[in-house]
Amino acid sequence: MARSLVSISDLRDDEISHLVELSRIFFEVNSREIPKVPTLRGKTIATLFFENSTRTRLSFELAATRLAADVLTFTLSSSSVSKGESLRDTAETIESLGADLIVMRHFSAGSVQLVSSWLDIPLVNAGDGAHEHPTQALLDAVTIMDHFKTGKRLDGISVAIVGDVLHSRVARSNVQLLSRLGANVTLVGPPSLLPLDLSLWPVRISNCLEDVLPGCDVIYMLRIQSERFSESLMPSIGEFSRAFALNSERLEMASKGAIVMHPGPMIKGVEITAEAAESPRSLIRTQVRNGVGVRMAVLYWLLGANQGRLESIW
Amino acid sequence: MARSLVSISDLRDDEISHLVELSRIFFEVNSREIPKVPTLRGKTIATLFFENSTRTRLSFELAATRLAADVLTFTLSSSSVSKGESLRDTAETIESLGADLIVMRHFSAGSVQLVSSWLDIPLVNAGDGAHEHPTQALLDAVTIMDHFKTGKRLDGISVAIVGDVLHSRVARSNVQLLSRLGANVTLVGPPSLLPLDLSLWPVRISNCLEDVLPGCDVIYMLRIQSERFSESLMPSIGEFSRAFALNSERLEMASKGAIVMHPGPMIKGVEITAEAAESPRSLIRTQVRNGVGVRMAVLYWLLGANQGRLESIW
Amino acid sequence: MARSLVSISDLRDDEISHLVELSRIFFEVNSREIPKVPTLRGKTIATLFFENSTRTRLSFELAATRLAADVLTFTLSSSSVSKGESLRDTAETIESLGADLIVMRHFSAGSVQLVSSWLDIPLVNAGDGAHEHPTQALLDAVTIMDHFKTGKRLDGISVAIVGDVLHSRVARSNVQLLSRLGANVTLVGPPSLLPLDLSLWPVRISNCLEDVLPGCDVIYMLRIQSERFSESLMPSIGEFSRAFALNSERLEMASKGAIVMHPGPMIKGVEITAEAAESPRSLIRTQVRNGVGVRMAVLYWLLGANQGRLESIW
Repeated sequence: MARSLVSISDLRDDEISHLVELSRIFFEVNSREIPKVPTLRGKTIATLFFENSTRTRLSFELAATRLAADVLTFTLSSSSVSKGESLRDTAETIESLGADLIVMRHFSAGSVQLVSSWLDIPLVNAGDGAHEHPTQALLDAVTIMDHFKTGKRLDGISVAIVGDVLHSRVARSNVQLLSRLGANVTLVGPPSLLPLDLSLWPVRISNCLEDVLPGCDVIYMLRIQSERFSESLMPSIGEFSRAFALNSERLEMASKGAIVMHPGPMIKGVEITAEAAESPRSLIRTQVRNGVGVRMAVLYWLLGANQGRLESIW
Repeated sequence: MARSLVSISDLRDDEISHLVELSRIFFEVNSREIPKVPTLRGKTIATLFFENSTRTRLSFELAATRLAADVLTFTLSSSSVSKGESLRDTAETIESLGADLIVMRHFSAGSVQLVSSWLDIPLVNAGDGAHEHPTQALLDAVTIMDHFKTGKRLDGISVAIVGDVLHSRVARSNVQLLSRLGANVTLVGPPSLLPLDLSLWPVRISNCLEDVLPGCDVIYMLRIQSERFSESLMPSIGEFSRAFALNSERLEMASKGAIVMHPGPMIKGVEITAEAAESPRSLIRTQVRNGVGVRMAVLYWLLGANQGRLESIW
Repeated sequence: MARSLVSISDLRDDEISHLVELSRIFFEVNSREIPKVPTLRGKTIATLFFENSTRTRLSFELAATRLAADVLTFTLSSSSVSKGESLRDTAETIESLGADLIVMRHFSAGSVQLVSSWLDIPLVNAGDGAHEHPTQALLDAVTIMDHFKTGKRLDGISVAIVGDVLHSRVARSNVQLLSRLGANVTLVGPPSLLPLDLSLWPVRISNCLEDVLPGCDVIYMLRIQSERFSESLMPSIGEFSRAFALNSERLEMASKGAIVMHPGPMIKGVEITAEAAESPRSLIRTQVRNGVGVRMAVLYWLLGANQGRLESIW
């Protein structure tokens, strides 16, 4: 069983630090006229996505391509799963075909951990149910560090994570990572969309966005999944938006230097208005851009680092 | 906002001429034992198709691959659009991921122009509603020029464009390009499938294919979309075929040197019979072949030309 | 019309021998740190699949990639077929785009042969209805040879092919190939799932798995397609499983050295239990692994062999 990245808790502090350093190296690679390095030439990286996510899948596949790896794309609709094959058989088949690493997204929390226990190759969790999405948290952390020039830490940075925390793997990974790096995290949302038992989470809680805005440096908006409203967790999209959507008016209440983030895809008009998303304070497009470099760092770290391939970057 | 190719009207005469020259260079590249050049190495070309079209998409992707670019494939079914993301956010995400150019097809006329106004990278219109499909017109023009050996012009060549002109983006782009190059274009079809106001189009009109055939050098058949019949634009497929389908009998009425073209996909037995499509006069397969070289020319022109990368072709 | 691989009967004995040798060369390539060779650089290989099969398609695409060929992926859902284009036009379009070889799977027996008669490029049959799947048989043969160290023959090896032989293209290709190589093949299944007229097949027949097990070296389980039960070919999945599924108890009845094979995807609990599939005697994952090398051999043989490109392997 190889080293995988399933959860932020898999990472030691020095490893987080190392991944931040590697990410910055790959940001520089991506700014080159020819943003490619032969670092993972001959490696095969498979993406195995049981949920649609072109955005995340292509970010990983572009990262693999820029490291000169080959890519195998498995998607649910075209896989043997519809013929009744088990998840284990699908995963073992991908390994037997010759994949050196699997990037996996699945609708069930814990599924990526389970698959990693069956295989001898590394897995990267690209989202498992409401559990974790560690590369999103890594790219968010580096984006905040680079904006506030806080080096490889986030000490003293106040982050509000706003919206449907209950169902958000992005929130779970970010709470862990950002607080370990020294940030103060506040979760903001209606009680029905916050986890019931938060006593062990290193966070503050608020049900009022307007209370939190003046004191935070980062306003991190989560996507609202419309299917939640039919689950009676909330009265209506309109009521949620009135209380928690980030609009220009609320953005004015935040401190001058506060930035806006969102993991995407956004539903503009629901959790965030177009004005807020496109304001000069928004780092949403920077998050997407940084995602490729951070994923290059993770793939390199899991596949190439042992083999002294880093010199190929220069 | 970078230079894009949305409409034939975006192109100056000297640029059309230059694209014809470039296309012929890439036809030569494609005839080599190893039909690849490193011209766009390190560039990332994204295809963003909101309508199914394997044929056109793969033509562009193969063109990109032969120029050594990397390809990101977005298709509707797998994109975040189903989660409610706006077209603008999808396009901006692709740009932020690192795409250097987007090849886009969309069911709405004008959508490619709109997206190009939001981004800083070039777009190529691979078909927007019933508006335009400029690379199809370019490949058709070069195919006719090369067949009739008319250099970089089409002076004196008579082209009949036959069938459902009303809904055809291929017709709109071809009418503009072929007439600018000197061809005489006649649109042929039942009145219900011709645009209502043609007074400003540089074309002649006919409702009788058999009248037009003896005088034309190119018989350009358009695809009939069966959904048009349910819109009451035509009595029935059978009646359309009886009057306007190209069959062997009608092909005999054309002048000896006349050629048959079709942008594909054909519905044989509806607008064209198998005999006509496969006759020695048919250049339909040449159109497909030339499409790859013409798209290499367009991608090179938008991405590589400023950077003096042409020497890498030899 | 180029040389294609549609059926095992297309191959002369010396060609089978040559493909076995080539496969072993590519197994060695695949064991390298960088398992890639420039052998088919500049060639374009298209996959045209009218049935879902990520496993087989990706095996071929990985094989192509490792030979440095470019890949064009056509799948049913995204193709022009839904617009009414004929199979012939689709195939000719792929050839005209510049494909040098097509790997095709189709639900109709004989369709790959038909397409190959229309084109000037080689086709590889990746499964046509209940007819043949020759690369599966080749990889199975090499897997058995390598396990029992029988060189390039299978003389004296007893193979039981068990289950739904009637609908299995894998069985049809394997019966031919394994028996030509000297193996003794026994088909095992309920009468309703065995072909009616087996008089010309070089096989023995049995309706009782337990009778056959003690005398065989290879227990080759076929996939049961659940739709067969609704066709009244069998009483129920449960009754089939009770009589023909390979489980630990039955595996004990086989000779000590007997191995377990399955072409995948498996429906564990139906034709094979997890215990049997994952036992140390199972070569199921080896089959998948060998598939890539065998397909590299076939692609190389059809595309590169005439051109003296083999030296590029070393």
